[in-house]
Amino acid sequence: MYISKRGMRILDGNQPLVAAHYRCASDPWHPESNPKGYINFGTAENHLVFDLLKNRLNASPDIREHHTHYAELHGMSDFREALASYLTDYTGVKASAEHIVTATGSSAILDMLMYALCEAGEGMILPAPYYAGFDHDLKTRVQVEPVPAYTRPEDGYKLTLEVLQQALLHAGKRTIKVRGIIITNPNNPLGQTYDRETLEMIVKFAADHKLQIVADELYMNSVFGSQPYVSLAEVAAEAGADIHLVYGFAKDFALSGFKAGLLHSTNEKVLQVVRELAYFMPVSNATQQILINLLRDKDFVKHFTDENKRRLKSASDFTHALLDKAGIPAEPTDAGFFVWMNLSKWLDSETFEMEFQLYNFILEQARVNVMPGQFFHNAEPGWFRLCYARNEQMLETGIERIRTALHRLDEARLTIDPDSQSVSESE
Amino acid sequence: MYISKRGMRILDGNQPLVAAHYRCASDPWHPESNPKGYINFGTAENHLVFDLLKNRLNASPDIREHHTHYAELHGMSDFREALASYLTDYTGVKASAEHIVTATGSSAILDMLMYALCEAGEGMILPAPYYAGFDHDLKTRVQVEPVPAYTRPEDGYKLTLEVLQQALLHAGKRTIKVRGIIITNPNNPLGQTYDRETLEMIVKFAADHKLQIVADELYMNSVFGSQPYVSLAEVAAEAGADIHLVYGFAKDFALSGFKAGLLHSTNEKVLQVVRELAYFMPVSNATQQILINLLRDKDFVKHFTDENKRRLKSASDFTHALLDKAGIPAEPTDAGFFVWMNLSKWLDSETFEMEFQLYNFILEQARVNVMPGQFFHNAEPGWFRLCYARNEQMLETGIERIRTALHRLDEARLTIDPDSQSVSESE
Repeated sequence: MYISKRGMRILDGNQPLVAAHYRCASDPWHPESNPKGYINFGTAENHLVFDLLKNRLNASPDIREHHTHYAELHGMSDFREALASYLTDYTGVKASAEHIVTATGSSAILDMLMYALCEAGEGMILPAPYYAGFDHDLKTRVQVEPVPAYTRPEDGYKLTLEVLQQALLHAGKRTIKVRGIIITNPNNPLGQTYDRETLEMIVKFAADHKLQIVADELYMNSVFGSQPYVSLAEVAAEAGADIHLVYGFAKDFALSGFKAGLLHSTNEKVLQVVRELAYFMPVSNATQQILINLLRDKDFVKHFTDENKRRLKSASDFTHALLDKAGIPAEPTDAGFFVWMNLSKWLDSETFEMEFQLYNFILEQARVNVMPGQFFHNAEPGWFRLCYARNEQMLETGIERIRTALHRLDEARLTIDPDSQSVSESE
Repeated sequence: MYISKRGMRILDGNQPLVAAHYRCASDPWHPESNPKGYINFGTAENHLVFDLLKNRLNASPDIREHHTHYAELHGMSDFREALASYLTDYTGVKASAEHIVTATGSSAILDMLMYALCEAGEGMILPAPYYAGFDHDLKTRVQVEPVPAYTRPEDGYKLTLEVLQQALLHAGKRTIKVRGIIITNPNNPLGQTYDRETLEMIVKFAADHKLQIVADELYMNSVFGSQPYVSLAEVAAEAGADIHLVYGFAKDFALSGFKAGLLHSTNEKVLQVVRELAYFMPVSNATQQILINLLRDKDFVKHFTDENKRRLKSASDFTHALLDKAGIPAEPTDAGFFVWMNLSKWLDSETFEMEFQLYNFILEQARVNVMPGQFFHNAEPGWFRLCYARNEQMLETGIERIRTALHRLDEARLTIDPDSQSVSESE
């Protein structure tokens, strides 16, 4: 049977994050019933708050007849109004329902937005390390090229003007026309927020080079550290610049399975294109109604958000303490679900091949999934992302398993006789 | 701000069906509170069964923690199994969960399927008149060309081999490579089902010309007439041919707002491509869970389906009787929500311009939305689709308004003095 060339092309689309997720899901750890199962610290999900949501999600959704029929496919006005009010409350910038388009998650939003902003083959700058899914979301269907702007561990992963300029230069050499920049703030995989000064630099850089700004702020309400969250929307508004804000329920509301995302843009032409595409990827009215019921109870949202941040901070502190005890260095975390660990001292050579071997070693030996930095386009091999938004028992068990596996590596090295090694190499 | 060329292109995408739908929705008729409001007989929705669904949709959805997290984006296995069982029960062909991909409605399914089957610029044959939305679904994003195969009122809209061959010939003249054929069975806008002989002819025609077969069977459980529903899946299976079956909850379950559709295909490569694309347009787990709860109660589904058919038949009979009384001829209806009316005797000239004027006249004067045949690529001007799945009072009021408006046209003609008319024409 004939398959189109464009169809065949996307069959190459291989997402290691997704593959590892399902591998773990097929044999998941349970302290009593499956103590040898996989522990998944690889998927960016928040497992700390279902108890807070359960009763609300299971109340009668209050589906009326109009919900069963066609509604605006870029989001019911009730839904977009509740979302605008939420954004206004938490980003500190006045948002508006007319500027919102909803769709089936932030991948869907990005897919539509990239279609509107770029031709196939054009590029978007992404400060690296960046969320691994961007490669899939940008390349698969809309054929937009990610252009990494490499921040470096030795600079504390600071995003500087030089880093962005280097990326532009590099894109030029690859003859990629760059249309914009995508900023994930708070950052995934670093688990850190950008300070106001950096955001101002980004806005100026974008203006100087006529680049559009996409602000992925999916973790905006998962910030608990000393560095406060400042929305790019606010900084851009102060500078009189437009941005396209991407948000959703997957992270801050721990509802990745509900596949509900939004775009807030102040550009009418972009909105028109995205609304037209949203026809193909709308959020079910039933799901919208459940989420409206959540959002409208502002006291609940406030309580939930505060409690979520408290639990994230507690789990983050707990994780850092365990890693410290295990002798594993890590960057500080002040947002998101991530601890960015440095396992480079367990690499025999400083290569991404070796990093990938270490990844597989931990997955096979420890049966723990932690994602290697190369999936996030990290500049230097040896770093891993650990998603810590899990219960303490799982964190203890998983990190103990990693410690044991790394310890075995250390011991193997000590017992290798350098002479016999060199002999075997010369054979 | 820069908008991509591909973005600008789809801004032309203008859907008259959708525009008229929202115009009516902005000022809807109500017998007491808004007796002068618009009556919408234009949108293919079933308004007869919400009472049967209401309590079930509003029961606790039984959302568990795993529903809040990532699940297979082409449909949870529970959902695909329930759907496979439903298809097996009602198409008479054994369906399988592994052969199913779910997504946000049948437009989403078609968008993905066309991406897999055709390059941009290639074509699909559609027996005309056909569902107006196909133009949008095929052309907007995937840039596939609909190739109408014109059936004709004088032949009772019979789909013959000659009609299909003419379409192929015509596509060849336009140098469009045809990749397949899309059959809507039961048919929209005709409200009729294809007999087994015709389906066998289609399968043979497709095999002879190496065309893929897409069976849009969204109305398969809205059949109530003398002509029974036979699935193309069954006829194709007997002939050893593969087909791609499109189904969803919009029509037979009257849940167009839930945006849940499916593809059942036995071709593994097609499934792979469509699964990959489904990543961008998944059905929310919450909505899947509500639909699983419905489908699993097979007694309910049986009762609902039988009662729905009974109500559709009753409303169809009622509508035909009203039209008959109003002197409006119409094709017989045995499925779907449609009466296909012949208003050609109210056209001053046999042109589609005049048909469009009559459409606007009825919309403005009668404040009733009925869709003109040109939106469905009907071969001859003067035909209109009336969606009758509304309550009897609305049907009476709406058809009486149409009758009055047409009567006014008749009177205007009679009172025009042919001489003064010719004088004014010669000026």
